[in-house]
Amino acid sequence: MRKLKLTELNRKGVTEFKETQKMPVIVVLDNLRSALNIGSIFRTSDAFLIEKIILTGICAIPPHHEIRKTAIGAEESMEWEYIEHIEAEIQRLKSSGYFIYGIEQTDKSQLLQEIKWQFPCVILLGNEVGGIKDTLLPFIDQAVEIPQEGTKHSLNVAVCGGIVLWEVYKGRGV
Amino acid sequence: MRKLKLTELNRKGVTEFKETQKMPVIVVLDNLRSALNIGSIFRTSDAFLIEKIILTGICAIPPHHEIRKTAIGAEESMEWEYIEHIEAEIQRLKSSGYFIYGIEQTDKSQLLQEIKWQFPCVILLGNEVGGIKDTLLPFIDQAVEIPQEGTKHSLNVAVCGGIVLWEVYKGRGV
Repeated sequence: MRKLKLTELNRKGVTEFKETQKMPVIVVLDNLRSALNIGSIFRTSDAFLIEKIILTGICAIPPHHEIRKTAIGAEESMEWEYIEHIEAEIQRLKSSGYFIYGIEQTDKSQLLQEIKWQFPCVILLGNEVGGIKDTLLPFIDQAVEIPQEGTKHSLNVAVCGGIVLWEVYKGRGV
Repeated sequence: MRKLKLTELNRKGVTEFKETQKMPVIVVLDNLRSALNIGSIFRTSDAFLIEKIILTGICAIPPHHEIRKTAIGAEESMEWEYIEHIEAEIQRLKSSGYFIYGIEQTDKSQLLQEIKWQFPCVILLGNEVGGIKDTLLPFIDQAVEIPQEGTKHSLNVAVCGGIVLWEVYKGRGV
C-alpha cells in the first residue's frame, strides 16, 4: 500500500469549487468564541460541499489569522456571510423552506443516528460553553444530540460539527 | 424546548468511567504535532468509550497545558500510554487479534461509509501534514478514507478522528 500524492487526490480548485453544485445546507455558527473552531468548520464545510456558512454574534470573521490557521484556505472557497440580526434571517430561511436543525442537548432532542435528514436545511451550532442561545431555540424544528457516554458534557464544537455534517452528507447520498 | 442542565446529562464521574466496559478499540496517534488536536481526541475518545489512546513519536503527553485546554479533563478519565517502539507494539496488538485500520488516503483505501468494522481494532491516525509514517503502512489491515469533495486535501485530524470514532461507535452498536 502507498499513500496517494496530493495531485492524485483530484481536489477542486477554488474557481471550480465555486461553480460546483452544493448540498442545500447552511451552517449557522452562533456566538463561537474560538476562531480556531470557526476555521476548522470552514475546512469541514468545504469537504462536504456545504452551501454557505453564516456567522453571527461574537464570531470572528475572515480575514483572521486564527481562522486561516485551521481553515487553511477554505475561507476563500466557502461562501460565508456575517448576519447581525440572526433571528430574522433564520425566520426568512424557514419561510423559504429550510428545516432548522439545532445541535443541542434539549428535552426534545433526537439522537443523531435516528435523524432522517430533510433538505434544504440549516445546521445550527452554538457557543462552546453556553450552546445555542435561548432566543434561537423557538426557531428549531428538530434538536439533535450526539450520544456521549463518558465524563465530559459535550464534544468540541468543531468535532461535533464534523460528525453532524458527515451524517448530513451521507443523508444526502454520498 | 429547553436546554438540559449539566446535571441532567447524567455523565459518569472519573471513577465510574474507569470501571465502565469500553469498546475494544485502541486509538494510536502517530506523530501528531499539535497538542490541541491530541487533547481534542482525548475528549472524543472519552465520549465514545475508547479503551485506550497510545501516543508515539513527537506527540505531546499529559500533563500538558494545550492537551488540557482541549481535553478539559478527559486526559484524567482516558487510559493512555506513550510507546516509543510503535512498530513492535502494533505487531503485538495484531498478534493479540486487533484489526489495524489506518485512516489514510492510499491506493487501497476503502471509503468510510463502506466499512464493516471488525473488533477488537486499532484506529491509527497520522501526522497533520505527512499522514501515517511509511514504516507503519505494512501493518495496516485496511486503509480508510473519508470522501471529500472540496478544495482541501484533508480534514483536521481531530475532526477526522471524531468522524471515524463516531462510525466505529455506531458499528459497535449504539
